[in-house]
Amino acid sequence: MHFTIDTNTFINGVQQANKAVSSRTTIPILTGIKIRATATGITLIGSDSDISIETFIPSSDEEHEYITIHEEGEMVLQAKYFAEIVRKMPGDALTLKKEGQMAASIASDNVVFNLNGYDPDNYPRLPQLQEEQVFQLPQYLLKDIISQTVFAVSSQETRPVLTGVNFTITDKELTATATDSHRLAMRTISVEAEEALDIKNVIIPGKSLVELNRILDDREDMVTIVVTSTQVLFKIDHLLFFSRLLDGKFPLTSHMIPTEGKTTVTLSTKALNRSLERAMLLSREVKNNVVHVKSVGTDQLEISSISAEVGKVKETIEATDLNGEELEIAFNGKNISDALKVIDSETISVLFTGAMSPFVIRPMNEKQMIHLFSPVRTS
Amino acid sequence: MHFTIDTNTFINGVQQANKAVSSRTTIPILTGIKIRATATGITLIGSDSDISIETFIPSSDEEHEYITIHEEGEMVLQAKYFAEIVRKMPGDALTLKKEGQMAASIASDNVVFNLNGYDPDNYPRLPQLQEEQVFQLPQYLLKDIISQTVFAVSSQETRPVLTGVNFTITDKELTATATDSHRLAMRTISVEAEEALDIKNVIIPGKSLVELNRILDDREDMVTIVVTSTQVLFKIDHLLFFSRLLDGKFPLTSHMIPTEGKTTVTLSTKALNRSLERAMLLSREVKNNVVHVKSVGTDQLEISSISAEVGKVKETIEATDLNGEELEIAFNGKNISDALKVIDSETISVLFTGAMSPFVIRPMNEKQMIHLFSPVRTS
Repeated sequence: MHFTIDTNTFINGVQQANKAVSSRTTIPILTGIKIRATATGITLIGSDSDISIETFIPSSDEEHEYITIHEEGEMVLQAKYFAEIVRKMPGDALTLKKEGQMAASIASDNVVFNLNGYDPDNYPRLPQLQEEQVFQLPQYLLKDIISQTVFAVSSQETRPVLTGVNFTITDKELTATATDSHRLAMRTISVEAEEALDIKNVIIPGKSLVELNRILDDREDMVTIVVTSTQVLFKIDHLLFFSRLLDGKFPLTSHMIPTEGKTTVTLSTKALNRSLERAMLLSREVKNNVVHVKSVGTDQLEISSISAEVGKVKETIEATDLNGEELEIAFNGKNISDALKVIDSETISVLFTGAMSPFVIRPMNEKQMIHLFSPVRTS
Repeated sequence: MHFTIDTNTFINGVQQANKAVSSRTTIPILTGIKIRATATGITLIGSDSDISIETFIPSSDEEHEYITIHEEGEMVLQAKYFAEIVRKMPGDALTLKKEGQMAASIASDNVVFNLNGYDPDNYPRLPQLQEEQVFQLPQYLLKDIISQTVFAVSSQETRPVLTGVNFTITDKELTATATDSHRLAMRTISVEAEEALDIKNVIIPGKSLVELNRILDDREDMVTIVVTSTQVLFKIDHLLFFSRLLDGKFPLTSHMIPTEGKTTVTLSTKALNRSLERAMLLSREVKNNVVHVKSVGTDQLEISSISAEVGKVKETIEATDLNGEELEIAFNGKNISDALKVIDSETISVLFTGAMSPFVIRPMNEKQMIHLFSPVRTS
């Protein structure tokens, strides 16, 4: 293997593949990045066995020539050093060449690195997916769906399926759901797909989605998504992002969402969030972020929290369209605050079903997003 | 105690006093900030017993009224909560009032916090310094002197005096020196002071100086510095910054600096630093940042490092005015790199006195800054 490449183009490619590499892997060769040089360009692969990223740098496009391939071949180089070396190279171009069995020389201007590597034949193959279940989404929308749900996944491994976001598609409508059993975030959206496409119980690990979101842009370009029973593949320009799926059955959640309640109210998203942040100053350490809310008259909510050691806070915020029974409830303020942060709408509508029953927050005039929360018992 | 104050003005004051407060203190009352309201304004005090910061907010200046004092008095409130509460207050003004024995209410718009406190009588008194040894420096210059020396203090407690920067003044010339016994950084400067002022062995803890540098601006305003045998005080506008001094005798360093050598060379500061950073990619983990340098002909230095596991790097940089014996030396690259970062000059002159003897780096045409380094023995 021997090629010369535009340094900045190579830096970008190596950084993308490197996003899949984990320093905590127990499989030594996965600390490496696989580099493949063919006549048409350079392929870079990184993997932590849960996710894999393959990115392709074409030798040229209509405007520029990026790569000169002197000799085709494959290598695996230690990601940690390789990525930093490439980034610190002084010249506009660099030359990478296989030396001996598995080592490489990387040269640019007056600098030459020699870097030891691994046998590329031992690098695991990427999965070959049957492209039967396929649909498309614009990048910015996929990015939205992920950030509006993934924060609600469980961080505990006691019920592994809850550490992922569940994706379903029926009648060209996609639903993404995440829950840690104390809160639930759900987003629906129309997708471009075959009429008959029916996808159920596709649970993508939250960690994979967080990593994917670092790669996605706010662009309108379409992402093609391929689903099989064990893997999902996102195709973004020249990049392939693979993730394993979580085994097991995601709980049925649609019936959990109340449609009628005892108290309804409309609130300013920002005012509520600022108020919760103040309340949590006192409750976050000792009291698990417990925040108390009660209705005051017909147009105010009182928000309070208390810590025996530190002190207490009490404030009122304006409530519009406060209807139904008087309200007195306590909840984990951080869960609500997390949800408010992904709501773009200036106002939210809240539906309470009783002091000890779940309540619903939706962006105003928006049917495609639902956040559900369990109250906490205080005595 | 009871006053109303402009919120932003108060936030700034509290943040400044809070810089002296450490969450790791073993003296409970020092987790608090002392607040004193008098007819002329509000004084805020924070301390970790090594450093203390007292800042004064005057009730008004020529243009604005910042504070209305309803009742004078003193309180101590828990810094961690108090600073965050003040920062998250919604209104342009806030009212702080003593409630009961030691608690306070802090109110702004529709928000009321009640915060528990400590007995202000138990808060340690700040030292009263004899103003006999006094001199002045512009803020920006004090900031320079600190950042150009403090990085070289020892991080090890085996010789406590080396964890501080030593300040001396003779003939209106101030010298600041720091050394961890492998490297030394020295900066001299003229100061405004009494002719007869003679200060020796004033060792200010590195940690105090790092904290002070976060408060200093790049302004020309003068800082007044008061020195006693156990304390130093920096007066900056309305702020007093106290630090204890380190006990013990700082090693004599002036005789350690070689004036003549075997090899001299002029190098680009930036080119050398980039080259060292590349070399350290391979040597920083296993080899203690060991970098090798040797002269090549009359106008180049070869810089290299090697790691048996990872690989090696070799490069050449341009050397001007390379005179004297052939050079081959090894050193801790990080020590050199730290020094290069505080050198503004585009070129440096280096004076080598042999493979196993200390060498000197100075900014080109600059007599007021010296960096000295011990080589490392390699076999």
